[in-house]
Order: sequence, then C-alpha cells, then structure tokens
Amino acid sequence: MKISVLDSTLRDGAQGVDISFSVNDKIAIAKTLDAFGVDYIEAGNPGSNPKDMEFFSLARELDLKNAKLCAFGSTRRKGIPAEQDANLRALLCANTPAVTVFGKASLLHVHEILGVSPEENLRMIDESIRFLKENGKEVIFDAEHFFDGYALDAVYAAAVLSAAAAAGADILCLCDTNGGTLPLGIHETVKRLHKDFPAAFFGIHTHDDIGCAIASSLLAVDAGAAHIQGTFIGFGERCGNADLSGILPTLALKSRNEITGDISQTASAARKIAQIANVSIPAGKPYIGKNAFSHKAGMHIDGVLKNSSSFEHIDPALVGGERRFMLSEVAGRGSILEKIRPYAPHITKDDPLLGEIVAALKELEYQGYQFEGAEAGFELLTKKLLGTAKPHFRLVLYKITGEFPPLEGEFPSTALIKVEVDGQYETTAAQGCGPVHALDSALRKALLVFYPQLAEMKLTDYKVRVLDEKAATAAKVRVLIESADDAGTWTTIGVSDDIIEASLKALMDSIEYKLSKAE
Amino acid sequence: MKISVLDSTLRDGAQGVDISFSVNDKIAIAKTLDAFGVDYIEAGNPGSNPKDMEFFSLARELDLKNAKLCAFGSTRRKGIPAEQDANLRALLCANTPAVTVFGKASLLHVHEILGVSPEENLRMIDESIRFLKENGKEVIFDAEHFFDGYALDAVYAAAVLSAAAAAGADILCLCDTNGGTLPLGIHETVKRLHKDFPAAFFGIHTHDDIGCAIASSLLAVDAGAAHIQGTFIGFGERCGNADLSGILPTLALKSRNEITGDISQTASAARKIAQIANVSIPAGKPYIGKNAFSHKAGMHIDGVLKNSSSFEHIDPALVGGERRFMLSEVAGRGSILEKIRPYAPHITKDDPLLGEIVAALKELEYQGYQFEGAEAGFELLTKKLLGTAKPHFRLVLYKITGEFPPLEGEFPSTALIKVEVDGQYETTAAQGCGPVHALDSALRKALLVFYPQLAEMKLTDYKVRVLDEKAATAAKVRVLIESADDAGTWTTIGVSDDIIEASLKALMDSIEYKLSKAE
Repeated sequence: MKISVLDSTLRDGAQGVDISFSVNDKIAIAKTLDAFGVDYIEAGNPGSNPKDMEFFSLARELDLKNAKLCAFGSTRRKGIPAEQDANLRALLCANTPAVTVFGKASLLHVHEILGVSPEENLRMIDESIRFLKENGKEVIFDAEHFFDGYALDAVYAAAVLSAAAAAGADILCLCDTNGGTLPLGIHETVKRLHKDFPAAFFGIHTHDDIGCAIASSLLAVDAGAAHIQGTFIGFGERCGNADLSGILPTLALKSRNEITGDISQTASAARKIAQIANVSIPAGKPYIGKNAFSHKAGMHIDGVLKNSSSFEHIDPALVGGERRFMLSEVAGRGSILEKIRPYAPHITKDDPLLGEIVAALKELEYQGYQFEGAEAGFELLTKKLLGTAKPHFRLVLYKITGEFPPLEGEFPSTALIKVEVDGQYETTAAQGCGPVHALDSALRKALLVFYPQLAEMKLTDYKVRVLDEKAATAAKVRVLIESADDAGTWTTIGVSDDIIEASLKALMDSIEYKLSKAE
Repeated sequence: MKISVLDSTLRDGAQGVDISFSVNDKIAIAKTLDAFGVDYIEAGNPGSNPKDMEFFSLARELDLKNAKLCAFGSTRRKGIPAEQDANLRALLCANTPAVTVFGKASLLHVHEILGVSPEENLRMIDESIRFLKENGKEVIFDAEHFFDGYALDAVYAAAVLSAAAAAGADILCLCDTNGGTLPLGIHETVKRLHKDFPAAFFGIHTHDDIGCAIASSLLAVDAGAAHIQGTFIGFGERCGNADLSGILPTLALKSRNEITGDISQTASAARKIAQIANVSIPAGKPYIGKNAFSHKAGMHIDGVLKNSSSFEHIDPALVGGERRFMLSEVAGRGSILEKIRPYAPHITKDDPLLGEIVAALKELEYQGYQFEGAEAGFELLTKKLLGTAKPHFRLVLYKITGEFPPLEGEFPSTALIKVEVDGQYETTAAQGCGPVHALDSALRKALLVFYPQLAEMKLTDYKVRVLDEKAATAAKVRVLIESADDAGTWTTIGVSDDIIEASLKALMDSIEYKLSKAE
C-alpha cells in the first residue's frame, strides 16, 4: 500500500520547547523535506501567526519536486458563517494546494474548551470543510483528541468523522493529541473504523508522551491507515510528535508498504534539519543518532566483524548511517586491531605490541580517559606506543597568572610559554578571558613560528567533564577538544586534576595531530 | 497480573556509549533502583570484567529492601564441563541470589558466531542452567536473538526454550537483541509461545533500534509475558535498551498489571541516576524529561488552565513530574511566587518587586544561569533583590599563578586572596592541584578567621558544563557546586567565560548561603 506522509516540523514541530524558526529557516527545511520526499509539508498556521503568512508568500517561489505545501488552521468559530471566518480566509490566502483543518472529536473539549453544543461543533466541521472544498482545496481533516474522545463517547467521535467525510474531507486523520493512548488501543480502534467507514482514507497523528508514537503509527498503518503525520526528528509539544525519521525507514524496509521518500537520505536530511534548528540529535535516536550503529561490547564488535547482521538489524548504509566501533574497557583486541589497521596494517592479533596497547588503554581508562569520540587522541597514543609517531614540539615551561579585579580594559589572565622544536626555542605570552584561553593563545603563537600551517586549524568545540565530583575542586576533569581544518574535524582528550593541565594535554594533542596528519 | 522488573542499567546500560561507572557509582545506582523498587538489579558480568567482581564483593553490605542482585554471564564454553567453566564459576563467586545466563536462540549465531553444532548449543544451555540450579540460584535465561532466531528457524528457537525450561530456568526471557523486530511481530510470537508453553514464565528484553522498545515491551506483557528487562533511563548499546522509566508508569497507570515500583518516584530516581552517570536526560523523554509536561502553544496553555486533562494524558504529579508553562509571564510569576513564599511571604502577585525578580532571572538565564537544581543560588539571588540578604564578606582581590613544570614536591598552582569582613581585612594564600582548588583553599582559610563555623561545611560536588562549546577555550562555562554540613546539602551556581571566575562565584555563594542559613 502507498502511504502518504505529512511532515509538520514547520507547524507542530515549531511548538516544541527550544524550537524557533526564522522564515529563512523554514524555507531551508521545506527544501530539505522536499528533497527527501515527503508528500505534504504542513508549514504553518497563517491565521494565528503573521510570520507564517510571510513564509507562505515567499514559498510560492519554491519549486517543490515531491511535496505539496499545506496550511493549517481550525474550523470556523462558533456562530460565524465560514466565508466570514478570519482563520478560514487566512487558510485560502496561504494559497497552498492542500489545507489541514482541525476540529474537536472529544466531547470534553467541545464542552469545556470550545464551549459549544455538540451539534454546533458538527456544523462547524461540516461548513468549514465544505467552504475549503468549494474553494478547490485538498482537505486533510485532523480529528483532534480523537482517541481520547472515542474512549469518552465513541458515538460522538464517529459522528465527527461522518460529518467530515460527508463534507468532502479527503483524509480523515485520527489524532492522539495528548499522546497517552496505548498502541494496542490505537490498533483496535483504527481496525474498527476501517470496517465502519470502508470508503474513508484514514491518517494517523501521534505524540510521544508514553514513548509509543512510532509504534502506534506503525500499528495504525497495519490496521488500515494510509497517511502518517509526524515531524522529521520528532520535534513537537511536550515529548514531541511521532518521529518520521524513525517511522519511514521501518515502513520502507520492514513492511510491504511504499513511501515516496528516499530512505538512504534519512540520516543526512535529519542532520540538515537539526543544524538549521540548532539542536543536537540525541545520540541514541533510531537510525539517525550517532550511536544508532555504534558497537561497544567486545562480543558485539567481534560478532559484527564476522557477520554484521549478527548485531545490526539493517545495514546502516540503507539509511545513510555509519557503523562505529567504540573503544572501551569492554572492547577487545579485535576492535582495537580494526581501529589501528589503517596506519598499522602489519600488527596481527597475536602481536605482543597489541597486548601492550590494550594494557595501556586499560590503564588510561582507569585514570579517566575515554577514547570513544576522541579518535585522534587514540591514534596519537597508539602511534606513540607503536613507535611510529615523532613529536613535533616539546613544551618546556609555562606560567599562568590570573587576577581579580582585572586591570581596566585588560583580560584577567595571562600565560607565558616556552616551546622547543628541533633544538630551537620560542618564548612568548598571551592574554585571555581565562587561564585556558590565555594558554591556548600563547601556545599557538609560539608554534606558528615553526609551523605556519597551524593557521589553517581552529578549535571548534571544548567540553569539560568532572570525573570524581565528590573530590570537589580537587576533582579530576576530562577535557575534550574538537578542532577543524578544511579537510575535516578531529577530537583529542586530556585528563588531570588540574583543569589547566587537562586542557593543555588535549590542546597539544590536537596540534600534534594536525601536524602529523600532513605527513 | 504482577509483572517482575529487572533493571540492567549496571550491566547492559554500561554498554551504552558515553556510559562509564565507577564501583561507587554502581553502588549508588543500585541503592536508587532498590529504593524505587525494581525486583532484580542485574549488576555486571563478573566473568568478563574484574571491576564488576569488586562491585559484587562490596554489594554484600548493601541492605536491599526490594531488589535481588543478579549477576550476568554466558552459558559454558563449548567442550568444557559446566563446573570447570570460568564464567559460570565467576557467576557463583558473585554470590547473588539470582543469575542471568544467556544462550543463543538463533542458528545464525550458533553457526557463525559460536561455531558450535545446534546440538552442542542446546547441551551448553542445558548443563549451564542445571549447574546454576544445583548451586541454589534463581535462574533467568536470556534467549539472545530470540525473535530473529524464531524468524529464521522457529523450531530451533523453540527447542532452545524447551531445553532451558527442562533444565529448570525460572524465567525464559525473550530477547530482541538487535532491536529490529516489529512490535506486532513480538506480540504474535509471545502469544503463540504462551500457548505452546503454558507452564513457562516468559520475560521480554527489547532494544530501541526502531524506536519501539517501550511499545514492544507493553505488547509482550499484553501477550502474556510477566517479566520485563530494561534500563531505567534507557542506557544501552546503540539506541539503548527498553526505557523502564517509560514503561513502568504506563503499566501502573494504564493497565491492569501491578509492579513493585513506586511510580511517584519515577522522575526523581531518573534524575539521580542521570546525575551519577553524568549524562543529561533528553528534554522530551516521556514522563522524566524536563519538557514532558511543558506547554508552549497558547491554546494548550489555555486548555490546561481550564482542565489539565485537556492536554495532559496524566497528572504530572503521579510520576513526580512538574507542569511547566513556557513563555508565559503570568505562569512565570506564579511559580516564582510559590518558590519565594517561605522567606518572602509578604510579596504578592502584583508587587513590582516580583516583576524585577522575573526580569533579573530572565536576564541571568539568558547569560547561561539555570537555577533548576541550584535552589540555594536562587534563594541568595532573590533575597539580594528583595533587599533581605546582607553579604557576610567581600572579595577584595585575588591573584593566581600556575606553572609547568611544578617545583618538585609542590602543587602547580597558588592563590593569594584578600577578603573584607566589616571593615577588617584578611590576606592569605594557599596551594592546590589546580587554580580552582588553590583559590578554594585560600578563600576558606581567609574566612575561617571570621567565621569558625565554616569548618562544619565541605564541598561535596563540583560540576562544569561548557555552554557555547563552539567558542572553544573562550567558551562560557557553568559551574555547579554542592556543599554540605550536618543539616543538609545545598547547591550554588556561577557562570562566566573564565572558569576561575565561574567557580569562585559558585564557591562564594555556597559560603554565603552557609552563613545566612545560620541566622
């Protein structure tokens, strides 16, 4: 069965805490969704948000390949003819081929929130949909609070669907607006409705408040729904909307249904949207998180090396994902061998050097090092142990000072540093907004004298984690530093009970890696 | 039906990327899980990890109220009698009332990963379980890769279960180890097995690779499973294990099943475990995320104010969660008023001072302050704005130095400090393993002269979080410091682009709070 997909990142997704889109963000996300291949892009509520109207007027220039734009709004207000309702008129002004109009399917909401009679609510639904159809729109009817309403009064909830169907709605979308309905409840209800309304085209719209939005969407499709609403990374009110990046690959790869989207672009489309929204994708998110295909236990790594299907439910490449082997105390010789192969192909599983590397890693991990996510630091360390790395510089000494109150107009911290390169010395100093910043600046200044290519690299990320927090200000800290040049990024690590020393270790390794990379 | 719950945060959870527990962390998490009320705590693999054995020997001192400790390991190796198998012997040495032993239920794994005959695999399962039963253990058999194995060769997968049951396994736990099985597939299979093995006690163990771990666990219970395995916040390989904090409230509140756990402690237990593991809980996580009951859309906020069930599937208090209204001046004032009432009962909702406090908080939050979890810092700040706090000391100046290489036998950092108390000055200095440690020591030394009661307090926790990580070493950092005396603990906060300054702010506030508390 062909399943049509509506992405509401730009509308319901924008209601997520921490989410705020500019008009340009919305244009960029719409392009990304269209390139991936969703069928509808629900892009805003023009009646309630003037910024959304601006988007729709700009969006006319968009040359969409796969998706129809869709404006969203409520049924007419009580007691007003549809053609005079400001919201409905705004929906027409948005000038989209499709519109989503939502009405209440729960008597609790009809009585307590809308404050209208059940009959008037049905008339509001009927007249609003007829008005939009008469104006040539494809109409998706969102039956809001459908499952809660059906549990409360199934006859009335069904009457809402009947009214919408009779008025000409193209899709009847059943919404679990509060996200609390059990997946089997959704399954049974959709099955029953599918029987009761054999001619209807049902959709499903779920929220993740009990962590079942993905499963409930899949179950609704199994029960006969042929339209799914969600947001690409799961943005939305509270716990978020159904995450399309989690649903679509499963539908495409594990069911007999068809979708428009190019599943191999799932991970890259998600990364693009996350970047535009300026949020990080949780590392464990199905299919698209950076850990989705990461293996840490030695047994798992050994298994995947023998046959990847032993610990992977799909080939990561099918969704544009990447397999990663993590380094940790639970990782075995096999996974370390795999990691060092690119620069040490001569080392075999029985090589005593490999034993030394494993032992050194265990010792460092015991001290608080963690090389997962610090691959460059790992590479430098193992090359040093293998005897294949030669250091490009030596730190001779540093002195830092910090003071309060700072001299007016001056940074509060200064660092003096002396380095040696091939018997030549360079001493210099720099100021900074803290001791680490000052030391960082001084070190680069000194080394630039010998290595002008360091001007190409910059620090892009700095993370500090306190390890034994109970030791309070004498606690050990782990510092991770990410650096970048035109060719890519790399991460290094330092651990010490002195944050200055931990930062400096990571900094020096990051520079060392840049210099060794060039060779 | 009573559902027994096994938490594997300390075992399968430790296989999550970024998760690394010290033995003390494991003890603290075991206490938290026991206080919440899980039935089994699967705490490690003593045969493969010496640190786990250390945990089990310390764990004997734990006085658990609800949970049984459980050690985890594989069936015996091929061709070795069970009583001579090192792993099985390690399981006994762990001295736990229950053990989980895992065996392969998939022929793919039997052939390609274990490299044994199907018959030998059955013997390995049979003899391992008999050996553990003979030694008085309660045995949970984890049928690894069960659902994939059942799809591949249902007869063999069932034979594995028969062998385990005949050998005396108390629980047959069906594992979706790779996390790729569809929820309805799990539902059907468990239903069929429940019919085929009417006397068996089935468990379910799922992973979240298609985002359905919670739903699949619920469906398995519906189909007859009476035991659930998961990890409390969903830590685990790749996308993580089934998240118990998502499953247990749903089971307790939305089904007819019973569990041991105290659901009202769900959010606080999760926060505690996250803090020990030093990870953040994703904001949208069902029940426990900070956005789980946050409302942003105006329509939703209005609805919840009229009738909370209009946009909330449960009362947040049932799981220890908190309702939050975003971007809502009115709600902001209400909750702040609620917070300051104990020490400022005279302030009313219309007091202009309240407006000033709201504005100051917004400004500080914009700078990176976050007072959730730093209540003492919040109290000091609001008292200052209310004019009811008088500072007990003033920092006049400090100078810090740090050097590499340090003088032999000396700390690398020194701090000189001058403070003023009621017109009297004290200048002193101290050394430390880093500048923050040195400054902390010097500050206390100086203030002890005036306030001997400071000897009662000590720092118990120190946390650093980099805020704008892209600013690299010039990035803003947020420091949280927890202090304690005999009467309790309190947490203060400092934010700055200089880690020294941020730490000092939090330190000074922590001392100020101690001094003001006494009054």
